[in-house]
Amino acid sequence: MRDEGDILVVRVIDYMGDDGAVVQAARVSYGRGTKKVSEDRGLIHYLLRHWHTTPFEMAEIKFHVKLPIFVARQWIRHRMANVNEYSARYSILDREFYIPAQEHLSAQSVQNRQGRGEVVGAATLTDDAQRNYDHYLDLLNHDEGGQQIRDDRQGLARELARMNLSLNFYTQWYWKTDLHNLMNFVRLRADPHAQYEIRVYAEVILDILEKWVPLTYEAFREHRLEAATFSGEALKALGRMLAGEHVEQLDTSMSKREWDEFLAKLELS
Amino acid sequence: MRDEGDILVVRVIDYMGDDGAVVQAARVSYGRGTKKVSEDRGLIHYLLRHWHTTPFEMAEIKFHVKLPIFVARQWIRHRMANVNEYSARYSILDREFYIPAQEHLSAQSVQNRQGRGEVVGAATLTDDAQRNYDHYLDLLNHDEGGQQIRDDRQGLARELARMNLSLNFYTQWYWKTDLHNLMNFVRLRADPHAQYEIRVYAEVILDILEKWVPLTYEAFREHRLEAATFSGEALKALGRMLAGEHVEQLDTSMSKREWDEFLAKLELS
Amino acid sequence: MRDEGDILVVRVIDYMGDDGAVVQAARVSYGRGTKKVSEDRGLIHYLLRHWHTTPFEMAEIKFHVKLPIFVARQWIRHRMANVNEYSARYSILDREFYIPAQEHLSAQSVQNRQGRGEVVGAATLTDDAQRNYDHYLDLLNHDEGGQQIRDDRQGLARELARMNLSLNFYTQWYWKTDLHNLMNFVRLRADPHAQYEIRVYAEVILDILEKWVPLTYEAFREHRLEAATFSGEALKALGRMLAGEHVEQLDTSMSKREWDEFLAKLELS
Amino acid sequence: MRDEGDILVVRVIDYMGDDGAVVQAARVSYGRGTKKVSEDRGLIHYLLRHWHTTPFEMAEIKFHVKLPIFVARQWIRHRMANVNEYSARYSILDREFYIPAQEHLSAQSVQNRQGRGEVVGAATLTDDAQRNYDHYLDLLNHDEGGQQIRDDRQGLARELARMNLSLNFYTQWYWKTDLHNLMNFVRLRADPHAQYEIRVYAEVILDILEKWVPLTYEAFREHRLEAATFSGEALKALGRMLAGEHVEQLDTSMSKREWDEFLAKLELS
Repeated sequence: MRDEGDILVVRVIDYMGDDGAVVQAARVSYGRGTKKVSEDRGLIHYLLRHWHTTPFEMAEIKFHVKLPIFVARQWIRHRMANVNEYSARYSILDREFYIPAQEHLSAQSVQNRQGRGEVVGAATLTDDAQRNYDHYLDLLNHDEGGQQIRDDRQGLARELARMNLSLNFYTQWYWKTDLHNLMNFVRLRADPHAQYEIRVYAEVILDILEKWVPLTYEAFREHRLEAATFSGEALKALGRMLAGEHVEQLDTSMSKREWDEFLAKLELS
Repeated sequence: MRDEGDILVVRVIDYMGDDGAVVQAARVSYGRGTKKVSEDRGLIHYLLRHWHTTPFEMAEIKFHVKLPIFVARQWIRHRMANVNEYSARYSILDREFYIPAQEHLSAQSVQNRQGRGEVVGAATLTDDAQRNYDHYLDLLNHDEGGQQIRDDRQGLARELARMNLSLNFYTQWYWKTDLHNLMNFVRLRADPHAQYEIRVYAEVILDILEKWVPLTYEAFREHRLEAATFSGEALKALGRMLAGEHVEQLDTSMSKREWDEFLAKLELS
Repeated sequence: MRDEGDILVVRVIDYMGDDGAVVQAARVSYGRGTKKVSEDRGLIHYLLRHWHTTPFEMAEIKFHVKLPIFVARQWIRHRMANVNEYSARYSILDREFYIPAQEHLSAQSVQNRQGRGEVVGAATLTDDAQRNYDHYLDLLNHDEGGQQIRDDRQGLARELARMNLSLNFYTQWYWKTDLHNLMNFVRLRADPHAQYEIRVYAEVILDILEKWVPLTYEAFREHRLEAATFSGEALKALGRMLAGEHVEQLDTSMSKREWDEFLAKLELS
Repeated sequence: MRDEGDILVVRVIDYMGDDGAVVQAARVSYGRGTKKVSEDRGLIHYLLRHWHTTPFEMAEIKFHVKLPIFVARQWIRHRMANVNEYSARYSILDREFYIPAQEHLSAQSVQNRQGRGEVVGAATLTDDAQRNYDHYLDLLNHDEGGQQIRDDRQGLARELARMNLSLNFYTQWYWKTDLHNLMNFVRLRADPHAQYEIRVYAEVILDILEKWVPLTYEAFREHRLEAATFSGEALKALGRMLAGEHVEQLDTSMSKREWDEFLAKLELS
């Protein structure tokens, strides 16, 4: 096992196109008439603001990612992508597993005065992962160096032995997608509601976006990450508030939960 | 833990269309000119033989499936489907895990004269899964009945505790796809090269196909499952063999492996 | 040719699931923990508000649609759907084409005081479509009733003759998609910026949604059709306005165009 | 209008990865165990022969294509691709349309002794396209040079005027897809059953494949283009023939049509 920080790997393998490819594609869709839209930055903002998403599909990027299996299971739900994963059917996984850092374990135990639950958590997770891996090797009849342990029996097939590993073991894959779908990924996975363990990957990708496609990155922050959507009812309430009226939840048809979300978007909660 | 046979669940929740929907769609694509193609069975055979796949997309089916996580990880790679999985972020998984039956463990150990490795395998897999699940509950600070164990500390978040479970634990989902993509799934996963643990699901689905769309099922068996594809080189060799010539691998440009596959397709190996 | 109103055809052929299928799928993703979320309506609103879109993929619908080719070319860009189109390669298209109603031709000529251009438009479009269709039949060596015109020559292949038809001729297809993608279609195509000729189809589908999935329809209106998204900059301006400040475009980093859109969303323009 | 040969445009705009990217992805899926598979060529052949398609998704290519609208309507059915098309809603199309060359018109009229039908065909198609375009400009109130024709009336909106153009007018787009889906496109569209007018594009792309990914190209020819699939019944007949038996259609359960296809695959018809 290595420290959490050592393992998180998001490496750009290759990419095709950048902000220029987005602009080029948008212009063919507007033809001659686009001569007036001379400014790339404004065009990219316009596209994102109006959900004209196809030009962003014209840029493509491929990553090598190393990630815990339980994170991979969330990640793979993004179907508009190409994936080649390291296969534990044919290969042997390394003794690499994820243990949350102290502060993330303790973040879950706010009300615990002693604050000792975390230590137990980390120790349990580590012990079980180590034992599971030891037994994985044993089932394979393999030692750490890949040598057969016992001559007098054959190991279990790799495709079966792997089932003894826990969900915090690391897998890796090549993952390739286009800029539009990458932004969808980041929007959903960099969100505060996303699990911390996938959010850290989304944030690394966000940094990569900034370097790769600076104009798209800026517009994406402005029109997606920092944006908020207001429902029809919320817009009505907003109109009344702007007209100077004092509005409370019961004056609207919003539920308590929706009202709280509404105030939070306005930073009034 | 229950016995393997108790757990495999593939339940049809709903479906839309059947052989008739395939035929209806094929006929609109052929318009008036299809009056002559009066026979549904022949039409469906023709469609499959000629890879006219879009009419098969017009029938849809939805399953409830219960399956080990390592099987789910293979299954989810079929992207042209809709999935809602039981979430271990929000819910607690049951103490249900998969242990291969004796014959599947031993199938992996043919050359082992003593044949005792398997027993060890099953015991190890079972012990580790039980311990992992015990610790999972402990991390959650929950007993089996959902009651808090200790008052003086808060459990770990569900989204973190689950990482202690091994890949043979069961998950479940609703999985919905169209008939074309379902046949792709079955063709790849009912194949002898597929892992046994996903093959059993594919075989159950194959039985469902037979009841749901008998004409498509028959044509699918004939033109996909029992069919074989011969490369350009293989066709040349075949032509010479049909002309009465004795042909060996070295007379062709096929590799040893490809030649063996060629003979196997002809049941001559 | 028939009148525009006669031709627009959106017929539900089949469907699978409804609001209940959405709720059922959402609940499996929340597991035991959802017992508290007892109210279907609230759950569906919650899902749409938070872009939890996969449960809406669990309901499916299939339409028979008759539509002008230039509309079909916009429609087909929605890739997450299944399509079987009437094939003009194999069949003969009918003498059916779309001519915009007077008010839609004149809607394009607001500043034209005489308002006579439209009449010319309709006549030209009609004459050309009729002539193109006459020549189409002639190229096929077919009369309207499907009889050969001349014995002494063979007609042009259907796949070639069709190229003489103009883009307002009607085609038809079966089109099948899931509820999530159907809402995407409606959101984009019922939008005031969409071309009128596809918008009328989107509006018919919106009415179908209301009957098929009333709870989803209501939430979709509230959180998509009547909703508005505000960028980070727009939210800042909004915050200042709510604090009683008078804000103008130049006080913000919004462009003139974005500022106007901002006011329009607040119905302040 | 220009000559057919002048117009066909398939221009590579950009690409990402090549044979090496396929091999790299295949190896991560085989992990350490692949050390033995040292030969790239053999690995690529193996992948294609066994329908291991995901590694081919790791290479991506983007084209600029100019094509008649009726060809674009077939092409767009390949959904696993990204498209930005020149928009006739916002821009004015050029006076460019496709007229089949004499030999393709006559290919359709084999039994026509006079062989004059073709001339009529070309003349009709050309005259109608010219007239439709003249009227298109007139509806727009635009001359060829983009100048307004009459001051006293406004032209029809571009999105409406375009419906007067026939299906042989040229459109253009950026089209981006991965190597796996590109091979699917070529396999279906370079097939002798495909319409000539799309086949020419598929053949140009096939030449591009040869330069871009020579190993994949070679394997694709061998295992797809020159390959043939035999059904279960066909394999049985083949077995009997190889055993020296004389087999006729009535000895099998194949239909006349399937039997003829069977013999054609063996080049025995």
